[in-house]
Amino acid sequence: MRIQIKELRAKVLATLGKTLDSEDAKRVADVLIWAELSDIKPMGIAKMVGSEPVQKEIPSAPPETIRDTKLSRLINGHGGPAPSICQQATDVAIEKAKDHGFGIVAVNNVFCSSAAMAYYVERIAHADLIGIALSRSAGAVAPFGSADPLFGTNPIGFAFPTLQDPIVFDMATSPMTWTGLILAQAKGQQIPADLAIDSAGKPTTDPAEALKGAMFPFDHSYKGSGLGMIIEIMAGPLAASAYCDYKTFDKDYGNTFIAIDPELLVSLDDFKKECSDMISIIKNSRKQEGVADIRLPGERARQVYRHALDTGFVEVEDTVLAELGYL
Amino acid sequence: MRIQIKELRAKVLATLGKTLDSEDAKRVADVLIWAELSDIKPMGIAKMVGSEPVQKEIPSAPPETIRDTKLSRLINGHGGPAPSICQQATDVAIEKAKDHGFGIVAVNNVFCSSAAMAYYVERIAHADLIGIALSRSAGAVAPFGSADPLFGTNPIGFAFPTLQDPIVFDMATSPMTWTGLILAQAKGQQIPADLAIDSAGKPTTDPAEALKGAMFPFDHSYKGSGLGMIIEIMAGPLAASAYCDYKTFDKDYGNTFIAIDPELLVSLDDFKKECSDMISIIKNSRKQEGVADIRLPGERARQVYRHALDTGFVEVEDTVLAELGYL
Repeated sequence: MRIQIKELRAKVLATLGKTLDSEDAKRVADVLIWAELSDIKPMGIAKMVGSEPVQKEIPSAPPETIRDTKLSRLINGHGGPAPSICQQATDVAIEKAKDHGFGIVAVNNVFCSSAAMAYYVERIAHADLIGIALSRSAGAVAPFGSADPLFGTNPIGFAFPTLQDPIVFDMATSPMTWTGLILAQAKGQQIPADLAIDSAGKPTTDPAEALKGAMFPFDHSYKGSGLGMIIEIMAGPLAASAYCDYKTFDKDYGNTFIAIDPELLVSLDDFKKECSDMISIIKNSRKQEGVADIRLPGERARQVYRHALDTGFVEVEDTVLAELGYL
Repeated sequence: MRIQIKELRAKVLATLGKTLDSEDAKRVADVLIWAELSDIKPMGIAKMVGSEPVQKEIPSAPPETIRDTKLSRLINGHGGPAPSICQQATDVAIEKAKDHGFGIVAVNNVFCSSAAMAYYVERIAHADLIGIALSRSAGAVAPFGSADPLFGTNPIGFAFPTLQDPIVFDMATSPMTWTGLILAQAKGQQIPADLAIDSAGKPTTDPAEALKGAMFPFDHSYKGSGLGMIIEIMAGPLAASAYCDYKTFDKDYGNTFIAIDPELLVSLDDFKKECSDMISIIKNSRKQEGVADIRLPGERARQVYRHALDTGFVEVEDTVLAELGYL
């Protein structure tokens, strides 16, 4: 149903505030409501329901710096809510890149999804830096040829500053998000064929079976599998996080955030101008038959987000609202 | 036909040496013969035939440093052979990362392909660093929804040190390499349906028409298109190179090489151990029906390479050998 954003935000903050401290609650609300408004629903307030509701992630201690250099920091999240700790990690990466040209900050010991990669990388690009974010999660995707869910849904995001809005691109290396599978199960929907196998390795269209089995890589090929593996490494061993931990949801999620100053190589002004130019070349190119408008990565999400802000209202799944007691 | 590696190398060096200085010739031969032995044929000595033979890339001046910081260097290749200049750029990235934890080096003003990304990133991983390589080229791939070849075949490569051989993964964001299209045309072969459009935007299986038209992204979706765009930016504007230069083969190719020291975040020993562990988890996982062996990225190439070295012989396309006058 359509709900006032202001009202939704107050309710979300109230729910989160019951278990999390107010700063954590605010940061988590920022990420989830941004995704909800951007129509990236599996990354929105759906993160407050299901098998790993973010508000149940109560830290045993504040985030702890395990390793720190001019260019880098490794943060132990001590079980806190990933969207809050990852937001802080992103800001550290920005600071280091502003000071030294490059920053890489990794987070481990968090036990829920950090939600939309786009949120974090856009934040980096707004600081006139190139943003890259990688996140691994509990086993969901079978490597090419394997029947076991060794890789997480493993999203990756990139953002680049331009003269206008940043270019923002993110994608999961799975064909669906984990939350997407859970939502399909909750709604009693089937998933497309050729997307997942059950725990015996047989093709399935039942999201409940897929949750117990594995999804294929997004492109069904060694390329998507290889990309999933890159992310499993860059947000797993490189973040001193778990990896290939299929079927054990007690293992931690790793998250790695990278900020690169374009000035390391070129002038920022030229870089932003050329990125803007690239956008207009793409938007003004010849369309394929049946295509009304060539959309850039992140373009639709931003339009929907702005429209929501303009109207003050957002459409939220009834099932999610009901489960949160907001109906 | 089967040819002795020693003999092939001597012939390749002789051909390259007619136009290039001996250091450039040696570096180019290293890259192309490595790819030829690894059975990555479109990146092998096929680069010496076709529309942009590497030995015709005669520099107007030695490589020139345009911008240099502790962490970075931008190199103007002055029209020299990309595989030689990119090899030097890779070594600079390694040096900077060894000294400071991170190195990013970009090359512009080269007018031929740098060949296999795997070669460069493996070199970085052998120095106990994480290697990333990105390369853009003249327009070959239409962004999602577009009918114009705005992006290059835009390969990306990653490599990670382990306790044994590095993990090496590279892929083009196109469904075929450009050289692959040229080889298909030379052999009078058709290409698979659903892979390319002609210059009018209509589907085609004729490689000659595809060369005048555009390929789709490797996965036919917005994900592959977005990845192609990331590489177009990171090796285009970020390298002060051309971008979206479809149908103008006089524009330069950009190449960007990144080296990251895992020690920025974790202990190198732990990182290598965990990457090795990941390999054995994947190799020993349950296989999908009909799969005899789960292959890791780069595994087959390395086996073929070692076998070639062991036997002293390599199989090379007759058409390529004939065109080079080696038959």
